[in-house]
Amino acid sequence: MAKTNSGRFFEDYSVGQVLQHAVPRTVTDGERAMYHALYPARHALYSSDEFARASGLPQSPLDDLAAFHVVFGKTVPDVSLNAVANLGYAEGRWLKPVYAGDTLRSESEVIGIKQNSNGKTGVVYVRTRGLNQRDEAVMEYVRWVMVRKSDLSAPAPEAVVPQLKKALEPSDLVIPQGLNFSNYDFAQAGEAHRWGDYEIGEKINHVDGVTIEEAEHMLATRLWQNTAKVHFDLTFRPEGRLIYGGHVISMARALSFNGLANAQMIVGLNGGAHANPCFAGDTIKAWSEVLDKAETGVPGVGAIRLRLVSTKGGEPFELKNEDGRYMPGVLLDLDYWALMPI
Amino acid sequence: MAKTNSGRFFEDYSVGQVLQHAVPRTVTDGERAMYHALYPARHALYSSDEFARASGLPQSPLDDLAAFHVVFGKTVPDVSLNAVANLGYAEGRWLKPVYAGDTLRSESEVIGIKQNSNGKTGVVYVRTRGLNQRDEAVMEYVRWVMVRKSDLSAPAPEAVVPQLKKALEPSDLVIPQGLNFSNYDFAQAGEAHRWGDYEIGEKINHVDGVTIEEAEHMLATRLWQNTAKVHFDLTFRPEGRLIYGGHVISMARALSFNGLANAQMIVGLNGGAHANPCFAGDTIKAWSEVLDKAETGVPGVGAIRLRLVSTKGGEPFELKNEDGRYMPGVLLDLDYWALMPI
Amino acid sequence: MAKTNSGRFFEDYSVGQVLQHAVPRTVTDGERAMYHALYPARHALYSSDEFARASGLPQSPLDDLAAFHVVFGKTVPDVSLNAVANLGYAEGRWLKPVYAGDTLRSESEVIGIKQNSNGKTGVVYVRTRGLNQRDEAVMEYVRWVMVRKSDLSAPAPEAVVPQLKKALEPSDLVIPQGLNFSNYDFAQAGEAHRWGDYEIGEKINHVDGVTIEEAEHMLATRLWQNTAKVHFDLTFRPEGRLIYGGHVISMARALSFNGLANAQMIVGLNGGAHANPCFAGDTIKAWSEVLDKAETGVPGVGAIRLRLVSTKGGEPFELKNEDGRYMPGVLLDLDYWALMPI
Repeated sequence: MAKTNSGRFFEDYSVGQVLQHAVPRTVTDGERAMYHALYPARHALYSSDEFARASGLPQSPLDDLAAFHVVFGKTVPDVSLNAVANLGYAEGRWLKPVYAGDTLRSESEVIGIKQNSNGKTGVVYVRTRGLNQRDEAVMEYVRWVMVRKSDLSAPAPEAVVPQLKKALEPSDLVIPQGLNFSNYDFAQAGEAHRWGDYEIGEKINHVDGVTIEEAEHMLATRLWQNTAKVHFDLTFRPEGRLIYGGHVISMARALSFNGLANAQMIVGLNGGAHANPCFAGDTIKAWSEVLDKAETGVPGVGAIRLRLVSTKGGEPFELKNEDGRYMPGVLLDLDYWALMPI
Repeated sequence: MAKTNSGRFFEDYSVGQVLQHAVPRTVTDGERAMYHALYPARHALYSSDEFARASGLPQSPLDDLAAFHVVFGKTVPDVSLNAVANLGYAEGRWLKPVYAGDTLRSESEVIGIKQNSNGKTGVVYVRTRGLNQRDEAVMEYVRWVMVRKSDLSAPAPEAVVPQLKKALEPSDLVIPQGLNFSNYDFAQAGEAHRWGDYEIGEKINHVDGVTIEEAEHMLATRLWQNTAKVHFDLTFRPEGRLIYGGHVISMARALSFNGLANAQMIVGLNGGAHANPCFAGDTIKAWSEVLDKAETGVPGVGAIRLRLVSTKGGEPFELKNEDGRYMPGVLLDLDYWALMPI
Repeated sequence: MAKTNSGRFFEDYSVGQVLQHAVPRTVTDGERAMYHALYPARHALYSSDEFARASGLPQSPLDDLAAFHVVFGKTVPDVSLNAVANLGYAEGRWLKPVYAGDTLRSESEVIGIKQNSNGKTGVVYVRTRGLNQRDEAVMEYVRWVMVRKSDLSAPAPEAVVPQLKKALEPSDLVIPQGLNFSNYDFAQAGEAHRWGDYEIGEKINHVDGVTIEEAEHMLATRLWQNTAKVHFDLTFRPEGRLIYGGHVISMARALSFNGLANAQMIVGLNGGAHANPCFAGDTIKAWSEVLDKAETGVPGVGAIRLRLVSTKGGEPFELKNEDGRYMPGVLLDLDYWALMPI
């Protein structure tokens, strides 16, 4: 009996399946420090326990994206080991802040499946939930991937394609219990721009850039226990190790501090595309566009919907060409909801 | 009086000497997080405090190899600063788990000494013990190194070569107090294979590979306060910084998760050879062979003796050529005992 | 209204201005571990909580230079974003140890200003203080930088050049409350040389060297939330990312363990020059010169004033050429006070 995990193939999935992903993970102040070393992260709520307490939380949570990476990393051996492509995200919600000492695990339900016409691959949709040691959901999201078939003679399953929201409604967003921006200190946070200062359609060039190194993306990706071969093994990909898309997300989000320092917490992920691959040596920059705004009913807290675009070249604010395809310099097109002082 | 440490030479050692190694070290959650960033470490007992508690421990210990590296690192200024080669390990035992907050120090007793026939070098055998802040031994091992003489006219000492066990007996192994695998959760651990599923002689190819970067091996080696020049200073070794052998051990052990996810705790080190040097750019892979199995008398806990081979090329399961020499692609040949759910 | 921070220009400063720097930061055991991974730091007081307690402190503080980097990093967006050069440091004092869990913020007072004769730049002097969550000052220092004017037609301000001490007096130094070296364990600290063993004028070659990697200096610089573009963005500096001067300081200080293992705590910064730029691939070495010695009145604790020189080539003990200019291989010339067992 082979002892190593060869991963699931398309024919191994069926709608309704629930996959319990292995290797729970306790996160600590160590992960928090590593996150600050890996990304130019400066959002005050995650940098200062005092700032977090002044905002009604017991201490700084683990960065929302770090929580996402931990939950996501656990799904890789079951969902994307034989994936050809990561196709999209939807309906992502952060449900509870994660604190040092919490232990996270992940589970995924297969909610859709559709064989491609070539008979060699298919699309699998999963709804993944991250749970803490009290079995409370800390986040959830839908992801769909294209997976290879191993047995090409396996019959095509009945196609089920889930109805997914283009974007979460403001009423879908979960505001962390106790959060309160009434006494928000804009000087400490680093910028004076409040929710009311941003206009729908406004675009912000975040100016700063970081040239990516192999050691850094591998440290990050391993930290989240995402061990997909393509990120680490140069003999497997002599053309260059492919950088984990989540590394690009975290880098772009951290760069967005410059212009969006008060978009403190991420609470919703509406969608996202890894438009082009990223390799060591690329210089990551970022720009944002305000897509929507909403009130939340919580004192001082507004919601802002942002498009975060990460690039490795090209001009700021370029996104797609005339054919509707992403420009070659675009790495990431992410659509998320964040919380901001009104 | 020279203020810098020029290290001990062969003529400075004598049998019975006890060396108190300097710079005690407190380990924390920071070291735990760094270990997960540096290696694709996924053994559940070290990843999740909850899993550790379900196994009868108070929380996740520091990785056994991290404890080894800290203890080993302290010995370098006294034992291997003028070493020509690290020749072997024997009788290594983990005696007590190390937890965040523990402070480790090391001491070594010289247990053997033998001048080489060339009159320029000799072999020194030391038994090293790691101790915590309560002076409890947390691990011990024998190491022998070839050391240069500084004063070639110094007389050869009487040769003393210790009798060392080829392998620890199962009864030599110390099972951590309270450990209990009766309620072991194989789904959370990541693989279904229990102690009973492994056969003596069975070989496992761990499949995954990691291409090594300079920054990573230096971060790791410094973290254990091993400051041997050969690992850091390219002007000292223009042909390439030599990677600390322990980095290869930890990388190979972490890769062995894929096929040995339930070989949770390392409790014995029977022997080990750094067969060939490792440099940045090498891609490390690993395979294992089951050498022995034993019961431990502790509920649900079995012992498995494994050969862990790390390579940088060549075919899996290649080890030595017809002359009994290690194949050029073999980096490490390690022989250890681990604990596994029965 | 532009949302991104374009930094202050020379004409934006005036004497008496107080700048509250943004983004407070909680430091933890994670930062402590990262510091040990990034630098070959082995001073026992910072490595072992037990050693710190035997010296009268509650536990190991964060490395003094790490505290400096955190405080310094916060000033970058307000002080040096448009700086042409970092000209000097003076009157730096560590006032209180920083412990895991402390939250640091920084504020700076403009204490001097002088336009250059070219009309395009000027020198700004600031006194920066780092404060913890109890508003206690943990350190302070004066820095002066050359800053560009944006509006060349802005009138030159009245020149104010502060009188700064060439070196702190021993009586200026603040000895941490409770510190006591009466029971100092030299064997654990790693060297036998006490305060009395060092002579004014004595020079020490620290022997060891570290070849610098891009990933490492970026991890370090980000960890201190210093996000100045020049350190990260290769498209901004195609000739090579400039390494944060503080990375060189910390590397040199850590290397100085070999010969100055008992110069445990840094309490004063008399001055410092970043003599030449440092780039990845450079091999950093260090030497020290004893400039002064003083008693402190605290049991067992002496003060030693040291010149720490960091180099990337050249011979040890070379500093300046006949014209009084730094030799091309000199990176850093730092003048500081440390505490040592008498």
